[in-house]
Amino acid sequence: MELSFINGQAGHLLPVADRGLQYGDGLFETILCLDGAAQRFELHWERLRAGCARLAIALPEIRAELHAAIADAALPRAVAKLIVTRGSSARGYACPAAVAPNWILTIAAAPSPDPARYRDGIALMTCHTRLPHDRLLAGMKHLNRLHQVLARAELGEQVQDGVMLDQQGSVIEGVLSNLFLVQRGRVLTPDLSQCGVCGILRGEVMAACRTLGLALEVRAVAPHELLDADEVFVTNVLGGVVPVRSIDGRDIPRGPVARQLREQLCHQDALA
Amino acid sequence: MELSFINGQAGHLLPVADRGLQYGDGLFETILCLDGAAQRFELHWERLRAGCARLAIALPEIRAELHAAIADAALPRAVAKLIVTRGSSARGYACPAAVAPNWILTIAAAPSPDPARYRDGIALMTCHTRLPHDRLLAGMKHLNRLHQVLARAELGEQVQDGVMLDQQGSVIEGVLSNLFLVQRGRVLTPDLSQCGVCGILRGEVMAACRTLGLALEVRAVAPHELLDADEVFVTNVLGGVVPVRSIDGRDIPRGPVARQLREQLCHQDALA
Repeated sequence: MELSFINGQAGHLLPVADRGLQYGDGLFETILCLDGAAQRFELHWERLRAGCARLAIALPEIRAELHAAIADAALPRAVAKLIVTRGSSARGYACPAAVAPNWILTIAAAPSPDPARYRDGIALMTCHTRLPHDRLLAGMKHLNRLHQVLARAELGEQVQDGVMLDQQGSVIEGVLSNLFLVQRGRVLTPDLSQCGVCGILRGEVMAACRTLGLALEVRAVAPHELLDADEVFVTNVLGGVVPVRSIDGRDIPRGPVARQLREQLCHQDALA
Repeated sequence: MELSFINGQAGHLLPVADRGLQYGDGLFETILCLDGAAQRFELHWERLRAGCARLAIALPEIRAELHAAIADAALPRAVAKLIVTRGSSARGYACPAAVAPNWILTIAAAPSPDPARYRDGIALMTCHTRLPHDRLLAGMKHLNRLHQVLARAELGEQVQDGVMLDQQGSVIEGVLSNLFLVQRGRVLTPDLSQCGVCGILRGEVMAACRTLGLALEVRAVAPHELLDADEVFVTNVLGGVVPVRSIDGRDIPRGPVARQLREQLCHQDALA
């Protein structure tokens, strides 16, 4: 079952003049919904608002409509994907200042993740597709996602996510997630000021580290640090905090930090 | 007047599941059409074919349909924009191997450029928006075009195009065009192996230099070389070869090379 709405009207067809199609000129959010309620909604909204500000897209006030559509869908567990584009315009990069953004909401039932993921961890591989440094777009969940598409296409059946490096060879993120590691009791996560997506759950994990008294460091991370870590885990709002059991076929130990953070953050997500 | 076709059927509405919208997962071509005939069609097709191969998109054989639609439109001067996306798929970067690409063709009447552009030249400004190095996507006319959107938004009413630099400060291209300069009788154009779009008319100009016995060099170009050039000109298939009269308010001399290349390449484009 999938519902879709365009500018608040039920429908699944968008004008081809939309600049999301033409240029990837927009942003998106992927929101976990439980029993008709969007989880971490205000964090998603704040990231979207900040991204729209950076791209000079006039985000319309649609929060009430989003909540209503998600509540109406009344699904026990669902994913809501919201795309906001700059709007529809005539051919060409130029855009009239008065253009009205388009927003597209799709809501689809989503199965609960397999509990084995949390118990046994997932396997990762390092992708050949590398991310360019680009401060202009770094951190945003914008619609220019060819790198993720190409990286995802590298993953075979044997792995559940990929490690994406930047062109300098530092670890940046998962294809579908953000990455964390534990090193002698400290929690590390890659600096995303040059590339990568600042995930909602990444922010939550960073805040939870402070709450739980775990030392946290945000900095460049080398691939060997992942392989030599005491724990590695990935985060996204749909899957929660997921331990990693191997990278490129090399075993990674499981440990208490991922479990502790998951219990702290995801108990309400019906993932426990 | 604008015509639009989706997978060969007249229409202007696309499923929101299309991966062009979702991820910018596709490519496009912008084709000049004169009296119902696509100009330089096989060059556009070859670039599109090569781009699809790089992105592993299975380009459908639609050349006959494209020619027929453009002929049927029977416009004296028009722009045909063709978008090819990987197709429609369920949410997520993963894409089934069997997905059928979508293609979207729009044809719109286009006025002839103002002859004053060719006589007097156009004014450029240097954009703050810079292009990241990214061999993976360099050269292709893909749908991830946020840099061009942001650069175009910088241009005021006083300039007709912008100079885009890479993050290292080298000149790469115009926002709407490729860039050439003439330096002591030699024609120079930026190397696009790290970023930028390999324009169809850029390739034609490079070939024409050989035909005309003009020395041609493709290499990194510094901004001061543009300002100190004997001539600067921009190229794209819609506007042809257009001399530049100023960059950031500084006068650039006009000269014979742009005129010679324009006469060689664009006489059939009704731009003379």
